[in-house]
Amino acid sequence: MNEFELIRELTKNLHTHEGVAMGVGDDCAILNLGAEGKSTLFKTDAIVESVHFDRNADAAKVGRKALARCLSDIAAMAGRPLHAVVTLGLPEDFDPGYITRIYAGMNELAAEYNVAIVGGETTNNGDRLLINVAVIGEVESGKAVLRTGAQAGDAIFVSGELGGSLAGKHFEFTPRLKEAAWLASSGDVHAMIDLSDGLAGDLKHLVEASGVGAELMETSIPISRAAKLRYRGNETSKPPVLAALTDGEDFELLFTVSRADAVKILDGWKKEFPDTPITCIGKITSGSELQIKGERGKRNLTESGFVHFSPN
Amino acid sequence: MNEFELIRELTKNLHTHEGVAMGVGDDCAILNLGAEGKSTLFKTDAIVESVHFDRNADAAKVGRKALARCLSDIAAMAGRPLHAVVTLGLPEDFDPGYITRIYAGMNELAAEYNVAIVGGETTNNGDRLLINVAVIGEVESGKAVLRTGAQAGDAIFVSGELGGSLAGKHFEFTPRLKEAAWLASSGDVHAMIDLSDGLAGDLKHLVEASGVGAELMETSIPISRAAKLRYRGNETSKPPVLAALTDGEDFELLFTVSRADAVKILDGWKKEFPDTPITCIGKITSGSELQIKGERGKRNLTESGFVHFSPN
Repeated sequence: MNEFELIRELTKNLHTHEGVAMGVGDDCAILNLGAEGKSTLFKTDAIVESVHFDRNADAAKVGRKALARCLSDIAAMAGRPLHAVVTLGLPEDFDPGYITRIYAGMNELAAEYNVAIVGGETTNNGDRLLINVAVIGEVESGKAVLRTGAQAGDAIFVSGELGGSLAGKHFEFTPRLKEAAWLASSGDVHAMIDLSDGLAGDLKHLVEASGVGAELMETSIPISRAAKLRYRGNETSKPPVLAALTDGEDFELLFTVSRADAVKILDGWKKEFPDTPITCIGKITSGSELQIKGERGKRNLTESGFVHFSPN
Repeated sequence: MNEFELIRELTKNLHTHEGVAMGVGDDCAILNLGAEGKSTLFKTDAIVESVHFDRNADAAKVGRKALARCLSDIAAMAGRPLHAVVTLGLPEDFDPGYITRIYAGMNELAAEYNVAIVGGETTNNGDRLLINVAVIGEVESGKAVLRTGAQAGDAIFVSGELGGSLAGKHFEFTPRLKEAAWLASSGDVHAMIDLSDGLAGDLKHLVEASGVGAELMETSIPISRAAKLRYRGNETSKPPVLAALTDGEDFELLFTVSRADAVKILDGWKKEFPDTPITCIGKITSGSELQIKGERGKRNLTESGFVHFSPN
């Protein structure tokens, strides 16, 4: 039973009520708390020492990352983040100065996106540092962009360049909040997800949620300089395109747009965000196959994204 | 630097904005998300293996406890819980069946209080299981009961019986949601907190937040049967009254009421909740001293509640 199978098992019979517009299954939950014209987004996410960062990592960057991951999920719904609460699971030998710098890094990003950290919890956690952030956000009612809306014929876009995030980007990525808000207001964005498990894995999540297939164009996938350098420097055995497909923690937006709006979105984005690449990497297909078209023809996309665990 | 000093240090310069009615410092944060006449409550809390439960503990009870702690915090504000998101930090050798039972126990309590679990996160956590729950609740605007409102002359009440929670209650306690809602609607409740760190510690939090002192009557403190049995059976070296003062995880309500309303509250509670004791254990005083009056006179209350860590 791997991570995603376990989650399916855990979440299949959860109690719900009329305040839940959408529960488990997308980047955030969507709630109705009674504000006119607005829905509330709710998300929780954790990073753990030796899994998402090493003990020698810069504390401010660790704190920044813990919050930024949640903001990326709010972005994936085209929402605005508002409030965060933070849990610190502390190793027994923790250094208070390190923890203070974690909070400083987190708070700096919070201020940048006008997010208020409004509560916290501290507890022992054996020998590892764990940081959990839960975020509340908002979006105009009915305007959240889900994973479920992709339609056959849609163009598939991705922001930024992919792969090799471990070289540094996983600490410094920009949560694509502005870009997502612009997208949602500029055209007919059918479906969106943020890339946390890698392009291959997250595209799979998106097409499964939408009940469609996809065809990627291998030569169009934007590969990061870091992915190329890591391969050349023998830091990874993954060829760059494989890194772009399977490395986790890109935190870019993957979204689909009706074919009619594709050029408008492409041109508009380039004007609005000239420093952030946007690339059309393929199209949504009917059926349920995930395929990739390379120089040697078309094949099934068998690569998968990052999976935290797969015991048994 | 102990737990509470670290939290003060971490939270002293946090970014805020107009959507925050109250940030760090009470049982929950209070937010304004735009719903007319309503405020939103927000809380996060974690339990960790070997700290809050042992590996041989019943999984359903562990899950129940993880959520119940948060519900107790919502109760302490006199609010209603609505939505929860859950993070599982999993040990490498976890048993999927155990995790499924944790969720079942949590979901059963969620259904009982009409709380919807709307999202989750799973990650590795080395060798320990950690469960974090973040909860959203609501309360009529201006009706949340804070820690800060205690006034000299107030009667101090506590629900239930205290001490010895480790014997079993920490897994089975009733979050005092109904009782707190009744209190808030029935009288002039000035201040409230839930007992998680022990009476001595949490009373200290309450009086410090209110800028007052308190005088407890030692012989009035309701002592649980478990605290007495544990002492008699040599399971603890704490005399029962000390257990009632310092054991953590009672999850009862500690609140103060104007002297004029004290009898009304006492009588009304007994009618409304005949199976749940309520006891007047002392009074709020001017000044800042915490005192306790016993058979041998009055002394300063030097006992303190549970502190998760106090390195350096």
